[in-house]
Amino acid sequence: MNGKKGSYEINIPSTTKAKQPESRKKSGGGGGGGGFSFKGWMWSVWEFGKEDSNRVKFSLKVGLAVLLVSLLILFRAPYDVFGTNIIWSILTVAIMFEYTVGATFNRGFNRALGSVLAGIFAIAIAQLALSAGRVAEPFIIGVSIFLIGAITSFMKLWPSLVQYEYGFRVILFTYCLIIVSGYRMGNPFRTAMDRLYSIALGGIVAVLVNVLVFPIWAGEQLHKELVKSFDSVADSLEECVRKYLEDDGSDHPEFSKTVMDEFPDEPAYRTCRKTLNSSAKLESLANSAKWEPPHGKFRHFFYPWSEYVKVGAVLRYCAYEVMALHGVLHSEIQAPYNLRLTFQSEIKEATSQAAELVRCLGKDVSSMKQSIKTSLLKKVHSSTERLQYAIDLHSYLLTCHSDPPDTSSKPLSKLLSHAMMRKQMRRLHSWPSREVDAFEEDGGLCMDTLPRMRALESTAALSLATFTSLLIEFVARLDHLVEAVDQLAVMAKFNHESL
Amino acid sequence: MNGKKGSYEINIPSTTKAKQPESRKKSGGGGGGGGFSFKGWMWSVWEFGKEDSNRVKFSLKVGLAVLLVSLLILFRAPYDVFGTNIIWSILTVAIMFEYTVGATFNRGFNRALGSVLAGIFAIAIAQLALSAGRVAEPFIIGVSIFLIGAITSFMKLWPSLVQYEYGFRVILFTYCLIIVSGYRMGNPFRTAMDRLYSIALGGIVAVLVNVLVFPIWAGEQLHKELVKSFDSVADSLEECVRKYLEDDGSDHPEFSKTVMDEFPDEPAYRTCRKTLNSSAKLESLANSAKWEPPHGKFRHFFYPWSEYVKVGAVLRYCAYEVMALHGVLHSEIQAPYNLRLTFQSEIKEATSQAAELVRCLGKDVSSMKQSIKTSLLKKVHSSTERLQYAIDLHSYLLTCHSDPPDTSSKPLSKLLSHAMMRKQMRRLHSWPSREVDAFEEDGGLCMDTLPRMRALESTAALSLATFTSLLIEFVARLDHLVEAVDQLAVMAKFNHESL
Repeated sequence: MNGKKGSYEINIPSTTKAKQPESRKKSGGGGGGGGFSFKGWMWSVWEFGKEDSNRVKFSLKVGLAVLLVSLLILFRAPYDVFGTNIIWSILTVAIMFEYTVGATFNRGFNRALGSVLAGIFAIAIAQLALSAGRVAEPFIIGVSIFLIGAITSFMKLWPSLVQYEYGFRVILFTYCLIIVSGYRMGNPFRTAMDRLYSIALGGIVAVLVNVLVFPIWAGEQLHKELVKSFDSVADSLEECVRKYLEDDGSDHPEFSKTVMDEFPDEPAYRTCRKTLNSSAKLESLANSAKWEPPHGKFRHFFYPWSEYVKVGAVLRYCAYEVMALHGVLHSEIQAPYNLRLTFQSEIKEATSQAAELVRCLGKDVSSMKQSIKTSLLKKVHSSTERLQYAIDLHSYLLTCHSDPPDTSSKPLSKLLSHAMMRKQMRRLHSWPSREVDAFEEDGGLCMDTLPRMRALESTAALSLATFTSLLIEFVARLDHLVEAVDQLAVMAKFNHESL
Repeated sequence: MNGKKGSYEINIPSTTKAKQPESRKKSGGGGGGGGFSFKGWMWSVWEFGKEDSNRVKFSLKVGLAVLLVSLLILFRAPYDVFGTNIIWSILTVAIMFEYTVGATFNRGFNRALGSVLAGIFAIAIAQLALSAGRVAEPFIIGVSIFLIGAITSFMKLWPSLVQYEYGFRVILFTYCLIIVSGYRMGNPFRTAMDRLYSIALGGIVAVLVNVLVFPIWAGEQLHKELVKSFDSVADSLEECVRKYLEDDGSDHPEFSKTVMDEFPDEPAYRTCRKTLNSSAKLESLANSAKWEPPHGKFRHFFYPWSEYVKVGAVLRYCAYEVMALHGVLHSEIQAPYNLRLTFQSEIKEATSQAAELVRCLGKDVSSMKQSIKTSLLKKVHSSTERLQYAIDLHSYLLTCHSDPPDTSSKPLSKLLSHAMMRKQMRRLHSWPSREVDAFEEDGGLCMDTLPRMRALESTAALSLATFTSLLIEFVARLDHLVEAVDQLAVMAKFNHESL
């Protein structure tokens, strides 16, 4: 935007960018920039609509709603009844029509309650002002406007009222409009009523079109969003572990370039990172869903939408561990490749079991079935046990300079080839990046070189311990995920799976 | 909300709750619920306003702005000129007036551009419809309304246009209003112009009041927010490490109860978790700040507000490590207390150096000074080196069953008192929570009991290795934080510190 020259480009996980559909990156990208082609642009618009057909449905519905309400004015009859106040129904449709049914209801509620409250205030104050006499009237009206403005603005900052922000705005401007035009045009009661009727008309049109024509339910969106999160956590766990074990010692891209980056070869990681930022989205969907009547698969009243948010939060705590695993994968101190290979089968086993459990939980939520997870949990725990056991058996490998106890495995020094060892050394020495200068400036090396190298070597080996510990911690958190899903299943009355 | 009976209460870090001020929890809490006291409620309102005086200023400013614009109507002159269209200026003020100057400008821009575009479309289509004859006119108008509704709704879903959502709404309703009332009342051009003038009038009042009376700058808010994040990361790092070292083996609260909890005795952790969710807030503040003219400390044009977002993102990546450290602190597998004590001084040293560096960076940003961090970085790195070295020297402690090499330290078995050991065993055995049944159901113990216990014990000791690895990773990420702050300092032309 401003003066970006010479800056290194960090790809910030912005919400806007995050929502950007894949399709747009593939085709030339629409809007501005060199090499703009109309065909490419049309193609990306087409892809954008195809990706989620609800987008097209929503657009056509808005068009239909404004057309319907405009017809009221284009035809003569309603216009004759309401006069110019009928334009308020257009305004109402344009402002009230939201993407999901629940959000529309919520906004409609804000609008209706706000308008009614404002109308009551306005009529009360107008009566008071009228009875106070011709001189005092403008003063009373002026002071009341100031007070309503200040009080509604202060209230909408109050944390538990933030969600009704729009309602307070409605109170403010409806109050001003009624009382001011009442003062100028006389008969505030008549003005207020006409306006309320036409707002109600607009609201009814908006709600009917939104509910009856291809309804987009917030509850369903929330349901899908949560199921997607389960899959993305499982995917990115597997991807991260696979990359950790696959890595044959070839240099990673430099940390400074990748720490904030999109990691183009790790699509699941990017999806998972979105999960971390999804709390606001889940919450607003749940807020909207509460306004919706029973529909589709969600057949009973008071469906526990807030439980979805809770499950999402527990899942996010699991995702934090995946982020930490990813941090180890891309950190600059790395366990030697051969060492990782030693525990390969146990790590793989534990990972795939854990990922399967997460996917299975996601599938249960998706199909609204309640199934017993005991055997899966057992498998996950026993494979994690095996990993712990393996780490223990070979723990001398993690510390390098003690002799192996009575087992048949080879010591680390033999596991590492000469070339590998040298590469590892070089990599170790490149960390911390400013360390070498720092120490040399300090007046020579303050410790012997050999112990220092051994220290780094041992830290490198311990990075494997960190990786497995984090994996084990991930598994520990799965217990709570299972619990949260069980809780959801009970409260949402999921069906018991018939075996 | 709905059917919460019997559910275990998880405290979800919701944005609404997060914003809830401390004061409100202390005093009885306002609004509903048993034991409501008016005095307590007034007190919490007072505290809420005192906590951030901008809240009160904002409220009074809104009151003033609506009062000013209403005066235009209460006095006769402007009313005579504009007629009933003058009410649009009230609507504009109520809708345009935002908390910060930048957000008001942004909304005003949306409103202005939207109105102008809608006006142009409307006049063009109206002329076309008029020339098409009396019969075709309503059809052309109807189709155009449908198309405008559908197209603007589709466009506002497009990721890069999401931030102009309000502008598209304005286009939609302004277009409908002008074309419909023009059709009914004749002379769409005159209607459109009158309305545009009164919208402009409202916009000017809103902007003037917002800028001239106690302006609340988004830039300043962003600046403060970022500085606060630095402090909160440093605080929570220190808090987490202090708790890790302080813990004398007394039982932690159970994981299931605390994983999602507010951790009442860890205030810094809660603040840090807010930092993790602050990306959206920083971004919207930066978006608003771009609209603001140079002001206060930010004296040059094109101030690099987007760099603030980048620094915030790098800081968030450091905070992920703190979250992982916190995960180790509260995980169920814990390193024995005595083992932690062995590395106490090194861990403390590295932590306090790292925290000081973070705080120092925060202070630099706060005072807009550019200082050389080399000596601090050196200190951080050398203390981290010492920690690594210590871990290496004592690494046999982390694996338990190999004999110590030629050093003077005592082996783990001697470090652990008998009681401690038993407690540790019990704790180890409580994890994983369903493991014991699982194994017994599997048909007896499949491994010897002793090796299994040893495996758990070693994993427990390795948890210390995990903790230190994460700490070292945190320090490694600090390099990038220093870089990002340097980048900001250069682009924002911070003063070089005069020594």
